[in-house]
Amino acid sequence: MAEARVEVLRRLARRGANPQLQRALQKSRPVDIAAALGHLPPSEQRRLFLLLPVSEETAEVLFRLDQRDLEPLVRQLPFDRLVKLLDLMEPDDEADVIERLPLELKDKVLAAIQKEDKVLVEDILAWPEDSAGGIMQPIAFRLREDSTCRDAIAALHDQQDRLENIFYVYVENEDEQLVGVTSLRALLSHPPATPLKDIMTVDLIKVSPLDDQEEVARIASRYDLLAVPVVDENLHLVGIVTIDDVIDVIKEEALEDMMLMAGVPDEPDPHAGGIFKAARQRFTWLLVTLFGGIGMAEVIGIFENALAKQAILAGFIPVMLGTGGNVGIQAATVAVRNIAMGTDANTPLLSAVFRETRVGLLLGLGFATALGAYSLLRWWDTPLIGLAIANSILATVVVAAGVGTLVPLTLHRLSIDPAVATGPFVTTTIDLIAVLIYFTTAVAVLGL
Amino acid sequence: MAEARVEVLRRLARRGANPQLQRALQKSRPVDIAAALGHLPPSEQRRLFLLLPVSEETAEVLFRLDQRDLEPLVRQLPFDRLVKLLDLMEPDDEADVIERLPLELKDKVLAAIQKEDKVLVEDILAWPEDSAGGIMQPIAFRLREDSTCRDAIAALHDQQDRLENIFYVYVENEDEQLVGVTSLRALLSHPPATPLKDIMTVDLIKVSPLDDQEEVARIASRYDLLAVPVVDENLHLVGIVTIDDVIDVIKEEALEDMMLMAGVPDEPDPHAGGIFKAARQRFTWLLVTLFGGIGMAEVIGIFENALAKQAILAGFIPVMLGTGGNVGIQAATVAVRNIAMGTDANTPLLSAVFRETRVGLLLGLGFATALGAYSLLRWWDTPLIGLAIANSILATVVVAAGVGTLVPLTLHRLSIDPAVATGPFVTTTIDLIAVLIYFTTAVAVLGL
Repeated sequence: MAEARVEVLRRLARRGANPQLQRALQKSRPVDIAAALGHLPPSEQRRLFLLLPVSEETAEVLFRLDQRDLEPLVRQLPFDRLVKLLDLMEPDDEADVIERLPLELKDKVLAAIQKEDKVLVEDILAWPEDSAGGIMQPIAFRLREDSTCRDAIAALHDQQDRLENIFYVYVENEDEQLVGVTSLRALLSHPPATPLKDIMTVDLIKVSPLDDQEEVARIASRYDLLAVPVVDENLHLVGIVTIDDVIDVIKEEALEDMMLMAGVPDEPDPHAGGIFKAARQRFTWLLVTLFGGIGMAEVIGIFENALAKQAILAGFIPVMLGTGGNVGIQAATVAVRNIAMGTDANTPLLSAVFRETRVGLLLGLGFATALGAYSLLRWWDTPLIGLAIANSILATVVVAAGVGTLVPLTLHRLSIDPAVATGPFVTTTIDLIAVLIYFTTAVAVLGL
Repeated sequence: MAEARVEVLRRLARRGANPQLQRALQKSRPVDIAAALGHLPPSEQRRLFLLLPVSEETAEVLFRLDQRDLEPLVRQLPFDRLVKLLDLMEPDDEADVIERLPLELKDKVLAAIQKEDKVLVEDILAWPEDSAGGIMQPIAFRLREDSTCRDAIAALHDQQDRLENIFYVYVENEDEQLVGVTSLRALLSHPPATPLKDIMTVDLIKVSPLDDQEEVARIASRYDLLAVPVVDENLHLVGIVTIDDVIDVIKEEALEDMMLMAGVPDEPDPHAGGIFKAARQRFTWLLVTLFGGIGMAEVIGIFENALAKQAILAGFIPVMLGTGGNVGIQAATVAVRNIAMGTDANTPLLSAVFRETRVGLLLGLGFATALGAYSLLRWWDTPLIGLAIANSILATVVVAAGVGTLVPLTLHRLSIDPAVATGPFVTTTIDLIAVLIYFTTAVAVLGL
């Protein structure tokens, strides 16, 4: 559905069919217009964007644009139009867009936006980007505890322009400290004269502005909250983190984990800094592979004479490394998943490792049988090759399963993100172990 | 915070301190009680659970339990207490719990629950588990289009027991077809006599019961919806999928992708079927590694004579495979990420591959310099070894970057989940290519 609308907009824009385009734009949602803009060359982006009215919807288009499209567009846009659009945004979205503006525009814009917004935006920008303060909306619907349901509904009418979404009604005492929360539904379903303090929940879940956004998302999803209040050290309500931001955080963190697992630094656009920057960042991680590889070359070098006598041993290096690596990654992934789901919370470390090692033993026996049979049939005259291969693969797989489980669980206990466990570092370690096991076993069995 | 509460409950339960435990339970949220239950042995689980009143909160504890804890607990629970708790749940949660009951209890329970609930629960159970129908709440707040805001607020008072969360007000025509939607806030901010059809949004976003839950989650998060209406082919509203379920789906799918990337089948508990089942499932995937490994042994076997003359060549097999594999996984991960973020939507396939290949070229030059220098210093008397190594690693890294990008992008265009691209299949293919490049280059350069 969304794709079709985006495609229609893109085609009309490219054809330069302004009247039809304008009609199509009126029927489109901001996120789809932003996606269509992403498909256009800069000059056409500008033309399409200028067809849009100065409205809250157009402001949201700006907010929804990818970094890659936002930069060239804002540079081409008349400055006062940009400022007018920013003035129409909620402070949290406004701060997000201003944060992403090119440096030379940022200060000019901050000086030009409405004064009351400016204070709020600067407050948000002052917090770390990935903290509760950095993603919160600095406005909330709040009332004194002695207000009645009737007062609350009246206040709602008055303030509705200012408040984008009202998920909860926050209740403060006379020192402006957050003391309770209630819902719109509760306002409507109690007699109008009921004071808020009689219907509010006092057992509040709240976060502080410096809490990590991931922690805020975890709390919101654990307790099924539509908004989490952010309070400072004096218990003053400074803002709320809303469910739509929570979803963005959850999606962001999942991608971040995935990138971490592959050893690619997570950036808004991995190609933004050009291919040199991309190559440099990835190379840092790959250095582990490089040094590990040189280490393995040295280890194998020790067995040069054995290899010269039985060159065929070299042929099994790949299967030893590949199997060890994949079994290790599988074990690590299961461990990371169990940590994420909380399934292993009450399993002692050693029993989890022991359990995975037994899975490894079964897998190892399977591999030993298959590879042993293959080697036996292939090198019928040297049956010891089969024995050497079978023994090494068994040992490698068991060790890989154990290490693959132990590392993420240990990292988690040390409060390090366990997702790094499937990255190059652990894989290379397992590779080194596999090569050592393989050659020592082969040399011992074959008497080389 | 959550962890501390869980720990307190667990300790009081183990000590058998019932009065203190009861007080602590009253102050705890269902999700924390469920987590504490997960830390207790079955007999103590039962004892703690029977301390809880028959209430909606206790019903939610049941809903929040892990599969591993739910099964033994429901078997030990008095049957009529279980039924009473189920009767207190929302139909979607109720269906979820009944779905997870042991088979022998399932039919008994379905026969015993309240009749009106039974119809709703059976409706949900009839849809596929991972479809919009399978996760929807079959109840929504709906009104006719000629009702006024005043009618709507009155209806809200009447129906509030039935409705857990009211995110939107759905508006139907006289044929009971869904024609619009409005918000509680709109009800409150318009004059009481305004008919709903004057304030409703007619440009509705809706899904059908058979739509995949992942698609529903994508729509909800794209358009920032708190609930997505589910309509049948006659445009009758059959239920709503709410934001809390959307979050669960997003988290589930992220973990599923991660498991897919490692070739581990995603199951609620990877150890539920015992270690034999776990080993069998993972072995299926590893078979690719096994056959790939045998293939590589055969390829290397072709170069047995060359290896017998220059055994040291074997030492570089690991670094060729490791680097090729890791560069390929990095490229694939970047591609998967760009697909997920929609960043690459407007980049032609070949230009994306070309871009990553250039990053690969830079990385390859780095590796070639480092490994070439190492080999040159290490085997000073045979400088051609360094040349062979440098050439092969360069070629391997460039090819790996290209293949790693091409495969997920192609899979995506074929509507296959691109996350499989970093699994054993692609890694093994890159390994095979790396071995071939390495030995043909080495033999050519060294004239073996």
